[in-house]
Amino acid sequence: MSETGRTEAFSDGVLAIAITLLVLDLRVPLVETLHDESLAGALADKWPAYAAYVTSFLVIGIIWVNHHGVFELVGRVDRVTLFLNLLLLMAVVAIPFTTALMSEYLRAGDRNARTAALVYSFVMLAMSLAFASLYTHVARRPALLADGVDPAAVRGAIVRFSAIGLLLYLATMVVALFSAPWCLAAHFLIALYYCFQQLRPVTRSR
Amino acid sequence: MSETGRTEAFSDGVLAIAITLLVLDLRVPLVETLHDESLAGALADKWPAYAAYVTSFLVIGIIWVNHHGVFELVGRVDRVTLFLNLLLLMAVVAIPFTTALMSEYLRAGDRNARTAALVYSFVMLAMSLAFASLYTHVARRPALLADGVDPAAVRGAIVRFSAIGLLLYLATMVVALFSAPWCLAAHFLIALYYCFQQLRPVTRSR
Amino acid sequence: MSETGRTEAFSDGVLAIAITLLVLDLRVPLVETLHDESLAGALADKWPAYAAYVTSFLVIGIIWVNHHGVFELVGRVDRVTLFLNLLLLMAVVAIPFTTALMSEYLRAGDRNARTAALVYSFVMLAMSLAFASLYTHVARRPALLADGVDPAAVRGAIVRFSAIGLLLYLATMVVALFSAPWCLAAHFLIALYYCFQQLRPVTRSR
Amino acid sequence: MSETGRTEAFSDGVLAIAITLLVLDLRVPLVETLHDESLAGALADKWPAYAAYVTSFLVIGIIWVNHHGVFELVGRVDRVTLFLNLLLLMAVVAIPFTTALMSEYLRAGDRNARTAALVYSFVMLAMSLAFASLYTHVARRPALLADGVDPAAVRGAIVRFSAIGLLLYLATMVVALFSAPWCLAAHFLIALYYCFQQLRPVTRSR
Repeated sequence: MSETGRTEAFSDGVLAIAITLLVLDLRVPLVETLHDESLAGALADKWPAYAAYVTSFLVIGIIWVNHHGVFELVGRVDRVTLFLNLLLLMAVVAIPFTTALMSEYLRAGDRNARTAALVYSFVMLAMSLAFASLYTHVARRPALLADGVDPAAVRGAIVRFSAIGLLLYLATMVVALFSAPWCLAAHFLIALYYCFQQLRPVTRSR
Repeated sequence: MSETGRTEAFSDGVLAIAITLLVLDLRVPLVETLHDESLAGALADKWPAYAAYVTSFLVIGIIWVNHHGVFELVGRVDRVTLFLNLLLLMAVVAIPFTTALMSEYLRAGDRNARTAALVYSFVMLAMSLAFASLYTHVARRPALLADGVDPAAVRGAIVRFSAIGLLLYLATMVVALFSAPWCLAAHFLIALYYCFQQLRPVTRSR
Repeated sequence: MSETGRTEAFSDGVLAIAITLLVLDLRVPLVETLHDESLAGALADKWPAYAAYVTSFLVIGIIWVNHHGVFELVGRVDRVTLFLNLLLLMAVVAIPFTTALMSEYLRAGDRNARTAALVYSFVMLAMSLAFASLYTHVARRPALLADGVDPAAVRGAIVRFSAIGLLLYLATMVVALFSAPWCLAAHFLIALYYCFQQLRPVTRSR
Repeated sequence: MSETGRTEAFSDGVLAIAITLLVLDLRVPLVETLHDESLAGALADKWPAYAAYVTSFLVIGIIWVNHHGVFELVGRVDRVTLFLNLLLLMAVVAIPFTTALMSEYLRAGDRNARTAALVYSFVMLAMSLAFASLYTHVARRPALLADGVDPAAVRGAIVRFSAIGLLLYLATMVVALFSAPWCLAAHFLIALYYCFQQLRPVTRSR
């Protein structure tokens, strides 16, 4: 397997595990802590956990899709690419933690909910920054591109590819200052937007 | 690797992790909480956890087999396929949570056991719905099928492939209203049925 | 990827996750529960957890090696092969649980230590039984063997391959009745034995 | 897949899971344990957990890169290679545990912080020792090397490849005796050093 293939396979593994670990944020209410409450009530009470689960699942899913989109352009990896990719993964792996934070504090009152939403958005911003750096690094070095990829086109997409995510995630930090639920909703909408609007056509024959 | 291969590999990773995380639902009784009870008694007391573990393990195993069955027909993936596949995985990843819920409440008394069984069955139904949507989406678009696959045959199997699972899982929700243990048994039987009856022949030369 | 390749890749994923989840059985003593004890003392006190970790790690590592040994002989998989493989994985995935049980009760006194050792050995026996069934099923069906594999040789190895593991693991259940630490040591020795003595030569050119 | 490819794929899986499990060491402060403290304060208070997370993430990332570096030289694996590789993985899989230990005790006072730092460094040293043994074993057996690899060059690198890591990690054990935070910083610096200085050129065409 080439360097590129190995890097993709390792990244895929980490992304698959991070997305699956999100389930650990859904915690079962124990029988002995229910007292008079019904399980249905206790579960309904945990809606922030489900909302955070769905949102983070979509976000990591989209990161996976875009990660491959970038690596399809790459033919060779150098040390800086590997390092930037590790930084990207380091942010993604933290998402189950920030998701649990969001679940726990979404309704916990003004100040702490804001902190949770800021931390959640900050990790997404860091992920987005690592992604933009990775793309920009590769796009500026024609020697790293795969055969048949047009360097000018890749370079031309730097601003669009790098800037939009950064701006969107910066915006969620502003939203976080006002409302944690709306901040989570903003992340959900960004993920949906990437799902249907931003993806380059991925259709490709076998 | 083609788009299809990547999607399969990522899905396989998520399925392998979700099936393995089921072990986290088997919890060791701590020495200091045993009091006068024997460990043997405490473990025997946890039979719902083992029953739920075995059932969910089989279910995810079968999902893995059928997932490949569908992707063997697919030659290209489009955005909607990717999105429906993410929804399917989102339901599967929740199974370790619903399994833990079932273990905890299977014998917890009428109302809460019913809630747990309904939630367990609901996630299976959602999984089944995502699966049916994925199959139907692909089956209706000959351009997405792999070379040599007969579009008419694939389309002809929509009802059989999509409807049976949906109906069976809807039926488990009805059973859930009456008895959580029988509901779990129903899921076990459905998984066994898929194991031996429903699989298309998977024999294939290397 | 062929059916066989897919089954191997999925099994490899499950084995890699199960072996890594063993780390969750090593638990950090919390600052506030140490009281006057030193951390060094508290960690030394947990030697059963390290012994169980090392033993189970070796066992799953050996299962991984032998699993590939078997699948190298296989050219086609049928439903029963898939089902027996799922049963094998179901036993392996339970090992982090039985390992935690062994860590917790190894020194907990006569009766409960015996229970833990019996459960640990029983899951190994079940794994061994699933493995023997898988091998026997494949060995008896020349149509399932890979091209160039000699059916008579494979069939001839049934007793050796199936019986030794079963007998060894049955023996550990007897040892479990007398001493949990010696039972764990027996599992460690069996794993070491498989490491160095039993492996078919795995050297093979790229 | 060849023996070598399988060993690499299994090792990659284990490394990907171990690096991702590091997130479990980042724990969310529960609402009910905050009392009058702000969440921001409680999170800031946990800086040792973040420092340990970043350091261990880098370390495992570098192990992954070097592991492939070694296996690119290998054309065949024998039993001892497999066994030494299992020992290497056994040390890596323990890293999430030693990382959690480091997070919990970094500021816990003299004696226990020292214990935590010693354990953290010891596992790194064991990893380094397994790695050096693996490399030395392969380097001394031309029959195990891949075609086109120069045995003299590989053998010539034994001291450099094996000794530097061992010495660096031995040095961290000395640092651990004086200061846990500086010990963690030393591990971070070693990982950074390997990131940018030690890697053989990994650029390679597809």
